[in-house]
Amino acid sequence: MNVLVYGDGQLAQMMYLAGTPLGITVSAVDVKTNTVVHPVSKEALAIDLDNAIKQADALTVEFEHVPETLLQQASATGKLMPNIDSILVGADRVREKQLLESHNIPNCRHIVVTDLTMLDECVEQLGDKLIIKSSRDGYDGYGQWRLQDVSQLPDLKQQLASLDLQKVPLVVEQMVTFERELSLIGVRTVYGDIKVYPLAENLHHKGQLHVSVAPACDISPELQKQAKDIFTTLADALDYVGVLAVEMFQCGDQLLVNELAPRVHNSGHWSIEGADVSQFESHLRALNALPIGSIEAQKKSAMVNIIGCDDLDLKMLGIAECHFHWYGKTVREKRKMGHITVTANSYRELGNKLELLTKYVPAEHFPMLMNEAEKLKQIDG
Amino acid sequence: MNVLVYGDGQLAQMMYLAGTPLGITVSAVDVKTNTVVHPVSKEALAIDLDNAIKQADALTVEFEHVPETLLQQASATGKLMPNIDSILVGADRVREKQLLESHNIPNCRHIVVTDLTMLDECVEQLGDKLIIKSSRDGYDGYGQWRLQDVSQLPDLKQQLASLDLQKVPLVVEQMVTFERELSLIGVRTVYGDIKVYPLAENLHHKGQLHVSVAPACDISPELQKQAKDIFTTLADALDYVGVLAVEMFQCGDQLLVNELAPRVHNSGHWSIEGADVSQFESHLRALNALPIGSIEAQKKSAMVNIIGCDDLDLKMLGIAECHFHWYGKTVREKRKMGHITVTANSYRELGNKLELLTKYVPAEHFPMLMNEAEKLKQIDG
Repeated sequence: MNVLVYGDGQLAQMMYLAGTPLGITVSAVDVKTNTVVHPVSKEALAIDLDNAIKQADALTVEFEHVPETLLQQASATGKLMPNIDSILVGADRVREKQLLESHNIPNCRHIVVTDLTMLDECVEQLGDKLIIKSSRDGYDGYGQWRLQDVSQLPDLKQQLASLDLQKVPLVVEQMVTFERELSLIGVRTVYGDIKVYPLAENLHHKGQLHVSVAPACDISPELQKQAKDIFTTLADALDYVGVLAVEMFQCGDQLLVNELAPRVHNSGHWSIEGADVSQFESHLRALNALPIGSIEAQKKSAMVNIIGCDDLDLKMLGIAECHFHWYGKTVREKRKMGHITVTANSYRELGNKLELLTKYVPAEHFPMLMNEAEKLKQIDG
Repeated sequence: MNVLVYGDGQLAQMMYLAGTPLGITVSAVDVKTNTVVHPVSKEALAIDLDNAIKQADALTVEFEHVPETLLQQASATGKLMPNIDSILVGADRVREKQLLESHNIPNCRHIVVTDLTMLDECVEQLGDKLIIKSSRDGYDGYGQWRLQDVSQLPDLKQQLASLDLQKVPLVVEQMVTFERELSLIGVRTVYGDIKVYPLAENLHHKGQLHVSVAPACDISPELQKQAKDIFTTLADALDYVGVLAVEMFQCGDQLLVNELAPRVHNSGHWSIEGADVSQFESHLRALNALPIGSIEAQKKSAMVNIIGCDDLDLKMLGIAECHFHWYGKTVREKRKMGHITVTANSYRELGNKLELLTKYVPAEHFPMLMNEAEKLKQIDG
């Protein structure tokens, strides 16, 4: 079995590592040059894109911002999973909001803005605490603005003046007060079977994911069911095949969908060690019409991103159940370089291990770690 | 970090898969052609052996029968781990027996035979139930003969007449009655720290390993300690670095060492899913002076070899915690094609899952599976 992934970053690499034992050969496409590369070494393979597409049993993506012409070529083969509509929903906040609205899935109140004068209407209807997002190419906190008070409106308009909002509208959302961000990773097969991982809690800093804890603590069966129902509605509506990530805000006992990612997702990396089958293997199983099996989490896991640094002390591996994942990239500010997953039998033990971990990583690059360790240490069970 | 492995089979492949997340690049040497290849695709890499040796931080082996000239070249760099003596002990039964004897480690009574006339002395001293092994190149049941009765002696002598016993002596062992075969996989670091996995029970058929169960059931703490003590004596004596496998017979509460393998071992494959850190990662951690961490087994595991066939039904992946490992080889009789690891919380559950597994594999190639399933189902806990 051959799977071709559009995108050649760490997600393609981890798909390759998950696919090899299954006898699935995963290759990657560098979408800047349209070359087919090895997902680990990134070296060009002796095959061109057209032939790689022909040879592949399934085509998939590791990010949603693949050039649309490539997606259309892939889609025309009938082998693209998830389908092109699902990918474009993830790449375009207007489509995403339309999908949520048309299925009555709770999300933040919002207005699609195609003209700057509409911002006044937004303030009138949604109040003056707003998050303004460009509808496309938004990724990791880029292309987002905030309004904290109506007095900032003229200034904001000036910042946005150069944008062509007819072409790329803005999605203006009411800022909501929420307790925490959760995400649900799930998988849907060609047969329509659905399995979901337990909800993960995600800690962000300056627009980037720093820590995910899974299963998130203190999740009632009702909340997990609410999340699964949302997932099922969306995945069925999209006739989705593969792994889909749904980012949500928890407001009391209500979940608001924030964002969809039509792919394996950073907040699911914990599943490599923390679940019976990782999200990467689940995705490949779905693409190849293999059964998903059990994807239960048997442990408590914390996934810690390594961002913008490489001065880590690998003696951290002396911590029991501490696992290191390096993506083989050169350091750049804000770049995801790798991640660390720690598993334990209880949250308290997990907190103790994260506290130990702080000794091996530079504190300035891990701003959430110590707090999260302290928090987990207080949890019973 | 770069690790170069002599041998390009499945063990090198699994080292590659374990090394990549750690940022360790594993390459392999095809020792028939002295080319450096990718451990998964087996494609030649753009580097020759001399330069690959120079670039490597560590050199290691995936089998002990690497041509001695290659081993000597590797050893001369000071980067070969385990060291050449350890590898040669694993490749030569005479050296192996000498090592065991010199450290008073219980093993089967034996005589080294360098002349066929010595066989009469063997029968006199050891009885007429004998296993005759060539001291080198013995692998997976080849190069072994059995004597069941003294009347077969003339016939046996005729079979062995063409061998040059001065060059490659025979090791003639008394056949022992043992309850079962166990193996201990352990790891020793450059600092001399030792950790061992729990004992695994190995089921052979026609000289090949078919099933390993780990932890082996019904192992007293004393027996596990006895095994660890043996491991420690041997690994310290050899100043061993990396993973070492010790195959043993259990005779009551006594362990007899049967064989050493100076490398990762088939009976340790269960550790990929069944232990906190797999034998492949442990080996790489040791080679790169990284801490080993915890290598505890948190589950009961059964590893089932896929031998000489490829007509398997991957719907087996619907069994919870059933993991498939394919080595990407073309089918040949008696060839190890891949393996399946099933984990469970109890032996009984493990037995139930193995019973399910029999539905997805051709019975004639899995002669031990149903019996083992039945046996495990009877075990409490």
